[in-house]
Amino acid sequence: MTRADRARRVAHVLRRQVLRGAFPGGVLPDERALIAEFGASRNTVREALGLLRDEGLVVRRRGVGTVVVGRAYEHPLGELSGLAEVLRRHGAVVNEVREAGVVRPPGSVARRLGLAEGSPAVYLERLRRVDGAPLSLDCTYLIPEVGEPLLARGRDALERQDVFDLIETGVGVRLGRAEVSVQAVVADPATCAVLAMPGGGAVLAVERLTRLADGRPADLEFIHLRGDRLTLHATLDRVRGTGADRSRPA
Amino acid sequence: MTRADRARRVAHVLRRQVLRGAFPGGVLPDERALIAEFGASRNTVREALGLLRDEGLVVRRRGVGTVVVGRAYEHPLGELSGLAEVLRRHGAVVNEVREAGVVRPPGSVARRLGLAEGSPAVYLERLRRVDGAPLSLDCTYLIPEVGEPLLARGRDALERQDVFDLIETGVGVRLGRAEVSVQAVVADPATCAVLAMPGGGAVLAVERLTRLADGRPADLEFIHLRGDRLTLHATLDRVRGTGADRSRPA
Repeated sequence: MTRADRARRVAHVLRRQVLRGAFPGGVLPDERALIAEFGASRNTVREALGLLRDEGLVVRRRGVGTVVVGRAYEHPLGELSGLAEVLRRHGAVVNEVREAGVVRPPGSVARRLGLAEGSPAVYLERLRRVDGAPLSLDCTYLIPEVGEPLLARGRDALERQDVFDLIETGVGVRLGRAEVSVQAVVADPATCAVLAMPGGGAVLAVERLTRLADGRPADLEFIHLRGDRLTLHATLDRVRGTGADRSRPA
Repeated sequence: MTRADRARRVAHVLRRQVLRGAFPGGVLPDERALIAEFGASRNTVREALGLLRDEGLVVRRRGVGTVVVGRAYEHPLGELSGLAEVLRRHGAVVNEVREAGVVRPPGSVARRLGLAEGSPAVYLERLRRVDGAPLSLDCTYLIPEVGEPLLARGRDALERQDVFDLIETGVGVRLGRAEVSVQAVVADPATCAVLAMPGGGAVLAVERLTRLADGRPADLEFIHLRGDRLTLHATLDRVRGTGADRSRPA
């Protein structure tokens, strides 16, 4: 086993502790304590801390030690509330509306939304900030039936309120099930710039297709969440048996 | 709106199509078709394709066009089966056992597993390959009660069988609920090397704490999944109301 392997193992454990906010005051234990905690050599511990520094999760501060940069938010994946509803528990959420209007959606988006080729959709692009810091870029295509009344609520409502909340309370239609896909990608330079991330950083690319209560697709979102600032979280039950459709959470 | 913004929007949609295997034969539509599909300029379409190339999802092949590299697997997140159980539907799964033995776990791992400080745990590190290509690196700490009988099954069983399956059928204990956290990170060089990824690539860092049916923690895993080869997937219901614990999938 190489030292890189040993450092990686230490980093696996430390990374989660950093992201869970496990260190009081955001200061990691000193080198001596980490050596004892992990039963690892000084060099291994240093290399592990170096990995977390490279990921932008911690910095070394002279006279203080290794400190956590910013903080990560836990987002319950099982909860199909809009992101803002969840983040509001953590701080002041502002949705900067970058675009809101009627567009001709790409053909594949139209198909997934059950729209005829060439028919319009409403496009909404918002940057979410929590306590001023960008957290996610949210690009949403809506069927006109839902999107047009949403636009009519005005930019102010879109800045303050969650889309799901606006759809249900403002437009007055009920949402049903959503299909969610989550992928890790290295953010492209334009997305990094919008999210105020260092270049080459990782984001969670989430695609979410939300249906109305009657099953019709209504809302297709492409969400990029800063990997260093957001963790998805779920509690899952063990599913037994085979053959049956097991794609739904138990 | 800048061209980078427009290219990013085209890339959001194309990326998911690539990952969903939406293009027959793995060949993307030609430039002219994409220009029509997205109502975008040639330069925007080229820039969007460039983003996907930079992410290692597609390559340009002379005389063929833009083709998908490898393929991504969808992993149902709602399904708390071991990864191998899911991947077996896609190809031949081999678990390369990189380490299997008794260790003194880091203090924070011992605490999460409900073990006394300084008591041993079983450590298991496996590299999953599907049809020969590395897909995930899976580092598991187990309580001795579960891990020791698992080790006694021998390396061969660990290579062929899923840990959850081995625990339930081999050790004979039933698993209950698991808590899962998912994060996007840029893989460290050692992890990139093990997963045969280009340096600087993104991985899904999954932490999963699995409990026995009686609620005691049994298995703490740190899993790194190649971002370019695996998508997590879930179907979620809209949760209404406030105040209640909404962290479980509906």
